[in-house]
Amino acid sequence: MSLLEKTIQQITARDKIAEAEARDRLDKLTMPHWALGRLMDLAVGLAGMTGTKKPTVSRKSVVVMVADHGVANEGVSLYPPEVTMQMVLNFVNGGAGINALAKLNGARVHVVDMGVNGDLSQLMNTDSIDVVHIGNGTRNIADGPAMSHEQAIESVESGIRIAIDLGQETDLFGTGDMGIGNTTPSSAIVSTMTGEEPDLVTGRGTGIDDKQFQGKVETIKKALRVNKVDPSDAMDVLAKVGGFEIGGIAGLILGAASLHKPVVIDGFISTAGALIAYGLCPLSAEYIVAAHKSVEKGHTAALTKLGKRPLLDLNLRLGEGTGAALAMNIVEAAVRVLTEVATFDEAGVSEAE
Amino acid sequence: MSLLEKTIQQITARDKIAEAEARDRLDKLTMPHWALGRLMDLAVGLAGMTGTKKPTVSRKSVVVMVADHGVANEGVSLYPPEVTMQMVLNFVNGGAGINALAKLNGARVHVVDMGVNGDLSQLMNTDSIDVVHIGNGTRNIADGPAMSHEQAIESVESGIRIAIDLGQETDLFGTGDMGIGNTTPSSAIVSTMTGEEPDLVTGRGTGIDDKQFQGKVETIKKALRVNKVDPSDAMDVLAKVGGFEIGGIAGLILGAASLHKPVVIDGFISTAGALIAYGLCPLSAEYIVAAHKSVEKGHTAALTKLGKRPLLDLNLRLGEGTGAALAMNIVEAAVRVLTEVATFDEAGVSEAE
Repeated sequence: MSLLEKTIQQITARDKIAEAEARDRLDKLTMPHWALGRLMDLAVGLAGMTGTKKPTVSRKSVVVMVADHGVANEGVSLYPPEVTMQMVLNFVNGGAGINALAKLNGARVHVVDMGVNGDLSQLMNTDSIDVVHIGNGTRNIADGPAMSHEQAIESVESGIRIAIDLGQETDLFGTGDMGIGNTTPSSAIVSTMTGEEPDLVTGRGTGIDDKQFQGKVETIKKALRVNKVDPSDAMDVLAKVGGFEIGGIAGLILGAASLHKPVVIDGFISTAGALIAYGLCPLSAEYIVAAHKSVEKGHTAALTKLGKRPLLDLNLRLGEGTGAALAMNIVEAAVRVLTEVATFDEAGVSEAE
Repeated sequence: MSLLEKTIQQITARDKIAEAEARDRLDKLTMPHWALGRLMDLAVGLAGMTGTKKPTVSRKSVVVMVADHGVANEGVSLYPPEVTMQMVLNFVNGGAGINALAKLNGARVHVVDMGVNGDLSQLMNTDSIDVVHIGNGTRNIADGPAMSHEQAIESVESGIRIAIDLGQETDLFGTGDMGIGNTTPSSAIVSTMTGEEPDLVTGRGTGIDDKQFQGKVETIKKALRVNKVDPSDAMDVLAKVGGFEIGGIAGLILGAASLHKPVVIDGFISTAGALIAYGLCPLSAEYIVAAHKSVEKGHTAALTKLGKRPLLDLNLRLGEGTGAALAMNIVEAAVRVLTEVATFDEAGVSEAE
């Protein structure tokens, strides 16, 4: 049995007994019933994921999956492709948005070269980066498949391996991405998996103008036409119109779910990865917490397909896992409410009349 | 000059130079322009409040103002009035929602007996409580004024004093409240200050049913009729249909603003306090950060009057400062983005083409 098959087999529904136990305690906390709303809903879900009414989420890792995209040559981004590799250096040097926000919330940043178009070997001795490097970026999806079927499996299985490896010291995963051009394959995936027309799930990415936006939509339409994607085969979708980092994110989600650990997905690219994970194993969505509603058009359609409502709505559109790092504080808050607040009995407070 | 007058005199508009300097740095950070959206808007505001492009918000205090309400006898709450005092013990023992969330985000919880109907003198030797105790709760606003004009001033000035005192070790304030029955005076204040009809700004509080809700609306209408409140005189509004803790919250906001320190307001009751502060000194609103959108009907109207958009929307309706404690993490995130993320030049990353 392949690692992917074995992982999917280990993904089970959330533990209904732990959820009921958590709900029972939350019902009795010293506050009007369910007065902490979505924190309490989330706490129930976390109990179900981890199989205990006293979940722990203190050890946190944000995994930033990085890769380049052949489609970047179509002018779909404001930035030149070399920025992908420059940003890896920025991550390793601690100067990026994700570094600041992960540090604030006590999360480790783990960067993975899933397929950067460049040589990162000088960084291989640092602790904070994994070099999987499936290729020097994908091929241009407007001309044909992004990668081979084998590479698609390799990208997902690499994500699974990273989850299993980090899982030894991680209670709560976060997903992140970096890759110039990667909103384009993400929109192609979201269009395919939700059935929405490309123009309804394509946004401005780095901030392109109207003309570039029209070109981006045309590029996505062409990619979908040329590649004849089959929405019922998520691995095929990933291979034809995806990206190495998107496969890595899908794998990380499957790995986290197989370990019965929650995974906070960041914005649009992470959600495209989550749709691939969902396509491969729908139960994996039970372990997903949606961090925030991205500015990127199409994010809501993707989250709706997953049955997720995001925790935050702060006009973010950076990626890198920044929204996930922020939302980790809300996840931890949910656990603290469940495990630290006293019940009416414990505190000697009178109940509702 | 009174403490109140002196405090109001010290409240100035935000520092436009510091805001421009912050905006200038944020424009150059290694990310697509303004890709962290509202975190960046908030960072600019924090620079303006504190008068520096490198604001500090690490020392945080949530002040939980507590008082009883004569109107609680009208059956406007699911809980008996003695719960107010029981919850003070819960706060001091660390078992309440605010304790868990403040601890998570590194905020100190400072409880103030603004006018609890009971004897808290046994707690006076603990560090975590201030006993101002203006009275044993307010009078029933359905029958006449909640308090005297002098008591209203005393409640606001007490809040100012607490802000000044805590300000020596606090960079970021949060407001919180506890007081069985206190959504009723809050709705009366919000109705008065926004001009909205009482039924449009009255909610279910602790979770009352339709019949109790109708009674609550009638009680508020009666209070507004009996007291002939004058919306142009915020101190009069506080005296007639307010509460001791609501005055304390208004004072805390004025005090924080006079110190040029940001203050995160929690939910509905805190926002009623903010409307009083705003009525006394409109510029104080420049120092307010709205934590979250409460379930309580009328909160949005109140925030709109203040020109505020809340950071979170998590179906919270607890009070105690819980939403403020949660949102403090977002405030700190905004500062970290401004002060810790590298610029394109610093990181050697290529800019947009």
